[in-house]
Amino acid sequence: MTFTDIDRLSISTIRLLAADQVSKANSGHPGAPLGLAPAAHVIWSQMKMNPKNPDWIARDRFVLSNGHAVALLYSMLHLTGYPLSIEDLKHFRQLGSKTPGHPEFELPGVEVTTGPLGQGISNAVGMAIAQKQFAATYNKPGFNLSDSFIYTICGDGCLQEGISSEASSLAGHLQLGNLIVIYDDNRITIDGSTAISFDEDVAKRYEAYGWEVLHVENGNEDLDAIAKAIAHAKTTVNKPTMIKLTTTIGYGSLKAGDHSVHGSPLSKDDLRQIKTKFGFNPDKSFQVPQEVYDHYQATILKPGQEANAKWDALFKQYQQKFPELGAELKRRLAGELPEGWESKLPTYKPGESALATRKLSEIVFQHLNESVPEIIGGSADLTPSNLTRWKEAVDFQPDVTGFGSYAGRYIRYGIREHGMGAIMNGISAFGANYKPYGGAFFNFLGYAAGAIRVSALAGHPVIWVATHDSIGVGEDGPTHQPIESLAHFRAMPNTHVWRPADGNEVSAAYKVALTSKHTPSIVALTRQNLPQLEGSSIENAVKGGYVLQDVENPDIIIAATGSEVSLSVEAAKLLAAKGIKARIVSLPDFLNFDKQPEEYRLSVLPDGVPILSVEVLSTSGWGKYAHQHFGLNRFGESGPAPQVFKYFDFTPEGVATRAEKTVNFYKGKDLISPLRTAF
Amino acid sequence: MTFTDIDRLSISTIRLLAADQVSKANSGHPGAPLGLAPAAHVIWSQMKMNPKNPDWIARDRFVLSNGHAVALLYSMLHLTGYPLSIEDLKHFRQLGSKTPGHPEFELPGVEVTTGPLGQGISNAVGMAIAQKQFAATYNKPGFNLSDSFIYTICGDGCLQEGISSEASSLAGHLQLGNLIVIYDDNRITIDGSTAISFDEDVAKRYEAYGWEVLHVENGNEDLDAIAKAIAHAKTTVNKPTMIKLTTTIGYGSLKAGDHSVHGSPLSKDDLRQIKTKFGFNPDKSFQVPQEVYDHYQATILKPGQEANAKWDALFKQYQQKFPELGAELKRRLAGELPEGWESKLPTYKPGESALATRKLSEIVFQHLNESVPEIIGGSADLTPSNLTRWKEAVDFQPDVTGFGSYAGRYIRYGIREHGMGAIMNGISAFGANYKPYGGAFFNFLGYAAGAIRVSALAGHPVIWVATHDSIGVGEDGPTHQPIESLAHFRAMPNTHVWRPADGNEVSAAYKVALTSKHTPSIVALTRQNLPQLEGSSIENAVKGGYVLQDVENPDIIIAATGSEVSLSVEAAKLLAAKGIKARIVSLPDFLNFDKQPEEYRLSVLPDGVPILSVEVLSTSGWGKYAHQHFGLNRFGESGPAPQVFKYFDFTPEGVATRAEKTVNFYKGKDLISPLRTAF
Ligand SMILES: [Ca+2]
Ligand SMILES: [Ca+2]
Repeated sequence: MTFTDIDRLSISTIRLLAADQVSKANSGHPGAPLGLAPAAHVIWSQMKMNPKNPDWIARDRFVLSNGHAVALLYSMLHLTGYPLSIEDLKHFRQLGSKTPGHPEFELPGVEVTTGPLGQGISNAVGMAIAQKQFAATYNKPGFNLSDSFIYTICGDGCLQEGISSEASSLAGHLQLGNLIVIYDDNRITIDGSTAISFDEDVAKRYEAYGWEVLHVENGNEDLDAIAKAIAHAKTTVNKPTMIKLTTTIGYGSLKAGDHSVHGSPLSKDDLRQIKTKFGFNPDKSFQVPQEVYDHYQATILKPGQEANAKWDALFKQYQQKFPELGAELKRRLAGELPEGWESKLPTYKPGESALATRKLSEIVFQHLNESVPEIIGGSADLTPSNLTRWKEAVDFQPDVTGFGSYAGRYIRYGIREHGMGAIMNGISAFGANYKPYGGAFFNFLGYAAGAIRVSALAGHPVIWVATHDSIGVGEDGPTHQPIESLAHFRAMPNTHVWRPADGNEVSAAYKVALTSKHTPSIVALTRQNLPQLEGSSIENAVKGGYVLQDVENPDIIIAATGSEVSLSVEAAKLLAAKGIKARIVSLPDFLNFDKQPEEYRLSVLPDGVPILSVEVLSTSGWGKYAHQHFGLNRFGESGPAPQVFKYFDFTPEGVATRAEKTVNFYKGKDLISPLRTAF
Repeated sequence: MTFTDIDRLSISTIRLLAADQVSKANSGHPGAPLGLAPAAHVIWSQMKMNPKNPDWIARDRFVLSNGHAVALLYSMLHLTGYPLSIEDLKHFRQLGSKTPGHPEFELPGVEVTTGPLGQGISNAVGMAIAQKQFAATYNKPGFNLSDSFIYTICGDGCLQEGISSEASSLAGHLQLGNLIVIYDDNRITIDGSTAISFDEDVAKRYEAYGWEVLHVENGNEDLDAIAKAIAHAKTTVNKPTMIKLTTTIGYGSLKAGDHSVHGSPLSKDDLRQIKTKFGFNPDKSFQVPQEVYDHYQATILKPGQEANAKWDALFKQYQQKFPELGAELKRRLAGELPEGWESKLPTYKPGESALATRKLSEIVFQHLNESVPEIIGGSADLTPSNLTRWKEAVDFQPDVTGFGSYAGRYIRYGIREHGMGAIMNGISAFGANYKPYGGAFFNFLGYAAGAIRVSALAGHPVIWVATHDSIGVGEDGPTHQPIESLAHFRAMPNTHVWRPADGNEVSAAYKVALTSKHTPSIVALTRQNLPQLEGSSIENAVKGGYVLQDVENPDIIIAATGSEVSLSVEAAKLLAAKGIKARIVSLPDFLNFDKQPEEYRLSVLPDGVPILSVEVLSTSGWGKYAHQHFGLNRFGESGPAPQVFKYFDFTPEGVATRAEKTVNFYKGKDLISPLRTAF
């Protein structure tokens, strides 16, 4: 690339569009866009993308990890022909606009939701993994269906967050040469100079991870150096590259180089002077010279559309030459699972072997891995505990390591739960219907809460295989026994939180999780064995809640999940002996239950019958479904699991006693279902 | 130190005690203790500690960051004279024992609760900060009251977790020469060889953080090399030191070097052969040669008791020579706050200026910083947003940086929420009544959930200044607007979750937080201004819930927190105009409210009146206190805050409408208070 005046004019346009957005909104972050406009221009000018088809699978990806610089991204999307108008830019950060305060996945051209620091760069690692796996699976000689690069811009904040350390270490191990990170080295954070808290040698740290590190000294102006660094990075095939780009935050502003330019609009005078400085009319806002539009059309939009058309033609040939793979890929690109895949889900009959639900989960992967090639996953170094690996799985590893291949679908995440969560989001965002899953102890999903929240907000249907879901952990004790975890994730919007009670419910959880388009799933699984239940079925369980065992005119309804369902069934027998009739309701997933018609929900949890919830974790959140609650609102204990259950009275007798007390408590009182709401 | 046969016998004793514990329990982790016994022996043999006075402030600290190796720690505590008997070791991992499956803070000699990986090493950074601050504050020429070192053993898991990256980077910046980390480089994790996921150059990474890195090649046997490395580390005053200690996991076992020895007991045969190998009777268990007891008594217990006595005498002199500082330190060591400190808490009258509760929090720090010198805190790079810094604060920084001094009490944490959380736990665990606090956006406490859980479980009374507590964030949008956060932390046992409504309630939150001995506090604070309320007072608010404004025979009770309290007060006026009488209840902290006598609680939320909760976050968890709920069970929106509130109908009218519907809904129905429980 050689750069001329039109490039510099384009960059000034980007800078001022960003500053104008922030000023118009009177809210936002002008500093980073002013510093990063040259990098964005140079990166985008050589990227492969089709703004008229933002989901084109063979595109390069651009992730703005420092999401607060979003005005930069909106400027780029507008200028290069994505469906984002100048009017949209004028509504930056306004209610209902297409241009919220941080990038949101749903906007075409935004590859991932960013803002929570460290997520974007970690998502990019996931995209790079997906691209490698995709290419290793589908590329054929003469049919280079995928050779995309993943570009990310990140700032100091992203690199201080531990999540990026986790993902970057793994990226180095995996030799992801398709990943290029531009580190905005502007030596400023909100508190002031990075010298006050972040004077480590970032370049050396990334070299220690196995990355290549390049340095561009004048990121404000030296377009040639930026272009040269990117070109070099692309030739490094067996290492991710970090380009340390030294810039001035708020470049062009009177406050350039100061932390005060990070998060507030430029002053009126400053905005006027910066426009003058860049040769623009200080009296006008949102100015885009026609030649800038023309330039991007010629250098990005048109070549992108042509490349897309060429790829479409290539893919047609591919489908003829490789009918099976071609059909599979076509299906995946349409976002559809293979026909009849659900028939592979195992089902169970009462009386079949009692098994831990983590074991039942393993059986699901064993049954599905062959027919659903988009399933890709692993564990945060707990494979033998999470039981996440099917027998024939090939590890996703660089060939040279001898541990697997890039066509492998089992990822050795290492002890990096938060990084794993963000990487799963990135794999999902890559496209091609990838269904990422990751195993961890349920309690340590707390480490990954930041990434899980982004899954839920952006709508990445990733799957957490969350084993060791209660005090059933046993001897490892309270540090490893979840208490608040169910309440935490159930309170998170758009999140399936499954706690299946037996094999059929495990299958139901995966059925919903794998068909989900925009909702992540947490599947909380036991360490200990559970019986296969009378009354359970996939059809029932997918509703999220159902009557497992019924009686006529019940005196009480016991609503339970997971390991406490069979416990409640046993309790019902004790109650029956005392003449107390109990209905047993299993509620494996609140989210899906809440989506059922009111009539159905009220048929499960009707008026007039006291409802007792039984779940050996925090009772918080159960007020929605039950009048009284038997749970564990304290930390657990270390000891053999059956003893710990007994210690907390989670036995058939313990449940029955509480049920009886509940019946007596409400005797003679008028009761309405907790489902009834006043508004 | 020179090592002889008795050292080797002691090490064998440690190894076999650990193996016996795991075998007797038939559960646990023998691999790491077998590899690390020599390091533990050498480290402890030169540590300053008094097993008969485990809380001696001048002791060196030892943190077992890889907490699953706890059998090693229990062996050390037993052998060196801490109150832990051989019977206790025989009850390893049994219900109700003093020896749970991971180290728990409450056991004398256990410096911090570990097991959740990465926490311990990060706690150690906090202890090292506290030691530096303590020494800079209280040491005087001739009165070296504190010169402790902080030792930590950690494994691959701790170093893969992002939290340790955050804390280690900060430790390098802060030049914590009192911190010595022994990295158990055994090249094994649960999934197998570290080569499959963790082949980064750890030593180089730590050098990049500004650490000194040493290497001991034969950690299994080379006691001299271990001792030499530690001696060298102690001479490095301006850098933390990592000693990379290459060991063999399960050393001595038939499965040595294999990941299968990590987490399961040795086989019977293996246990016999390892005892024989180390010269012990294969038929006996829990063998401790008397000379080993004698050795530790001579080398650790006796010198430690003597040093403690000498220190006590020195401190007596100190109190004479420096009466003011001496009295202050004596008070702090007794765990008492300065007399009358509460009188400095600001109070407010209705009609005084409306202020954001984050601003009111700043005023608290401004009022207290001088009289409560144990307050030490900072922000995860959001000082101007969290308002966590009092005007005269001195930064905690190495003098040579020119940014502050080690006597400073304001910590620039950088963008490292999880690391900050663990560092606060370490500062608290150091002793001397330190009251650590840390600022972050409430939504990003999710990043730190792992550390907050340890605060709650171990009982570290740290304080989170959690600003920007709702959609009141405004333009930054849903990535920054908490929804599930209150439900998450309220479901965590032993956690104050404050959401104060005005200045008096903010003061109440800090009053409880600072007097709390064993409970962490999260103080959720608004970005936007709130009025000073009629009816609020510190005395009322410390109860966690109270009647803010009352009427005779209310038709409805509106229970609210934070910014929704004043909203509800306005709604009550609209309702009054319609003839509907509303009582307003403020519930700033569920935990303290639940601790009030039943009679009091029922006087606030009595039978017979419908109760509506109003809180602009997830309604999950409110079933405990209210019959109907007005909240936000979806993600927020980007836009100016008042518009976003209006969009979700969180206005006086919106609240009044729902209150009216609630009244009508329950008309004619018998209602009991949600506080009533059947058991
Ligand atoms: Ca920066
Ligand atoms: Ca290891």
